[in-house]
Amino acid sequence: MSELPSYLESVAQTIDHMIDRYFVDKTGQLNKASAHLLAAGGKRLRPAVVMLAADAVKPGCSDDILHAALALEVTHTFTLVHDDIMDDDKLRRGVQTVHTKWDMPTGILAGDVLYARAFEHICMANAADDAKIRAVNMLAKACDEICEGQHMDMSFEHRTDVTEGEYMEMVRKKTGVLYAAAAGIGATLAGGNGVQVKALYSFGLNTGIAFQIQDDLIDLLTPPEKSGKDQASDLREGKQTLLMIKAREKGLDLKKYQKDLTPAEIQAAIQELTDSGVIGDVKGIAAALVSDSNRHLSILPASKERQLLMDVGEFFVTRSY
Amino acid sequence: MSELPSYLESVAQTIDHMIDRYFVDKTGQLNKASAHLLAAGGKRLRPAVVMLAADAVKPGCSDDILHAALALEVTHTFTLVHDDIMDDDKLRRGVQTVHTKWDMPTGILAGDVLYARAFEHICMANAADDAKIRAVNMLAKACDEICEGQHMDMSFEHRTDVTEGEYMEMVRKKTGVLYAAAAGIGATLAGGNGVQVKALYSFGLNTGIAFQIQDDLIDLLTPPEKSGKDQASDLREGKQTLLMIKAREKGLDLKKYQKDLTPAEIQAAIQELTDSGVIGDVKGIAAALVSDSNRHLSILPASKERQLLMDVGEFFVTRSY
Repeated sequence: MSELPSYLESVAQTIDHMIDRYFVDKTGQLNKASAHLLAAGGKRLRPAVVMLAADAVKPGCSDDILHAALALEVTHTFTLVHDDIMDDDKLRRGVQTVHTKWDMPTGILAGDVLYARAFEHICMANAADDAKIRAVNMLAKACDEICEGQHMDMSFEHRTDVTEGEYMEMVRKKTGVLYAAAAGIGATLAGGNGVQVKALYSFGLNTGIAFQIQDDLIDLLTPPEKSGKDQASDLREGKQTLLMIKAREKGLDLKKYQKDLTPAEIQAAIQELTDSGVIGDVKGIAAALVSDSNRHLSILPASKERQLLMDVGEFFVTRSY
Repeated sequence: MSELPSYLESVAQTIDHMIDRYFVDKTGQLNKASAHLLAAGGKRLRPAVVMLAADAVKPGCSDDILHAALALEVTHTFTLVHDDIMDDDKLRRGVQTVHTKWDMPTGILAGDVLYARAFEHICMANAADDAKIRAVNMLAKACDEICEGQHMDMSFEHRTDVTEGEYMEMVRKKTGVLYAAAAGIGATLAGGNGVQVKALYSFGLNTGIAFQIQDDLIDLLTPPEKSGKDQASDLREGKQTLLMIKAREKGLDLKKYQKDLTPAEIQAAIQELTDSGVIGDVKGIAAALVSDSNRHLSILPASKERQLLMDVGEFFVTRSY
């Protein structure tokens, strides 16, 4: 994995420059509100996947489709801005959320502006028109499904009986399809054929799902001084994560953890979930998704970029914050 | 204008059937919420403009681009769903607004689903790929500007000194650009050249602005039994419409009407605004926009559809509800 961190760093710099140029440097309150969360940092993982997928299909072509890479980050940010309103979250990436810093109407509009800009930037990519239309369609379908995923996620808040199948469908839509679109769009804009595009789409889908499962593990396992977030908040809130669902399947009672938890109590919960095999099962599911992702990549010729894509998958399920 | 009502009726039937097929017949709460306002009726004027523009450029081609016509109605509806949340309006088209019937998060998501579907339907049009990309770009830019227009409109609520120039910019963005995109998208998907597309875009822009100015006149002049809406609500709320701005320019004091108004007081206001020439000035501005629209159409060969487009402009500024 040695090359991945420096690769991701260079993509982040490129995307950050584009964000400055196309968003931050614009005047007007609505433009400022639209740029706010986009400029607050982020690992720019989706743009990296767009670019790696493109280069894995046609070496060296990612420079032509930087606008599409930016479009994926902009789309991701639009969903965060709207989600923050729905969940009334106050902070994200260390800054006030848009509707908190401005107001709810401005938050809705800022998200809507980003939504439009994502499609404008896809159109600005230097690629064949038929590929661009497929890319537009892939992005639109992803947005459609992300909404469905967010709706499912919210509906889970009122339930205690979410099944593994329902959880996986929610995560596929809420997180998986945008990584799938990132890889699929990169491949199609690079001129990839149907088989290549489908393979990269499937790679992104599985890796994206694994990414979200790892997020659930991090919430439980990573201490706040490392993650910058509250530890075990999902457990405290009784959130229907894969950990919770697997624990229920095994007859564990996690209700006792639905309260403010001391570090010792968090450790006890981790111990209980480890001893019962829940954590191992969940890690196993994430690992299986990544290994399936790699299988999809095997139709591509070996290349530095194909390896970096595999490293991305590996990184998604080994990161601890 | 004899053919226009029956033409609009036939377009509305076609679009209503597509709305049933692609929105109403879908299952799931989020799909139901997305279809709710779309299925509540409406004159389907933007789809009619898409189809007329297409046929005016290439006779008979509108059947190929019905999906793009639908996309414009879907886009319009997405903006209404989000606007209703921002303004916390409870009723529209005689039905509860989406966030009222469901809740605010579902309203945001329903609008976001419609937003995505608009782009999916543009992609489904039967047209050349380069034209479709131009159409996607035109639609995205329109959405971008509509947000800006809505933001300006909200900012006017806290002001009493909005100028005619600011008002016209707001209306251009909030209402004009979507009619412009409707006509421009119809023309481009029909294979129109740059001059034709630009002419139809300008036609739509001017007619759309005139449409909004007429809406302001209707608010003042049309009795509730005819309009189905409160009469003179803009006056009561001190809204910065073109009527209000022109009255201010002429030194009229309309503050006295910022209260619950009796029918007699509304008549007195109408009389004052008529006698001072305000209503005449505003009607003149709308009429000039429509006549300018027609000038743009003169580059097209004479056809039934070109005439119907002119009739649309005429209808926009002569309708009384």
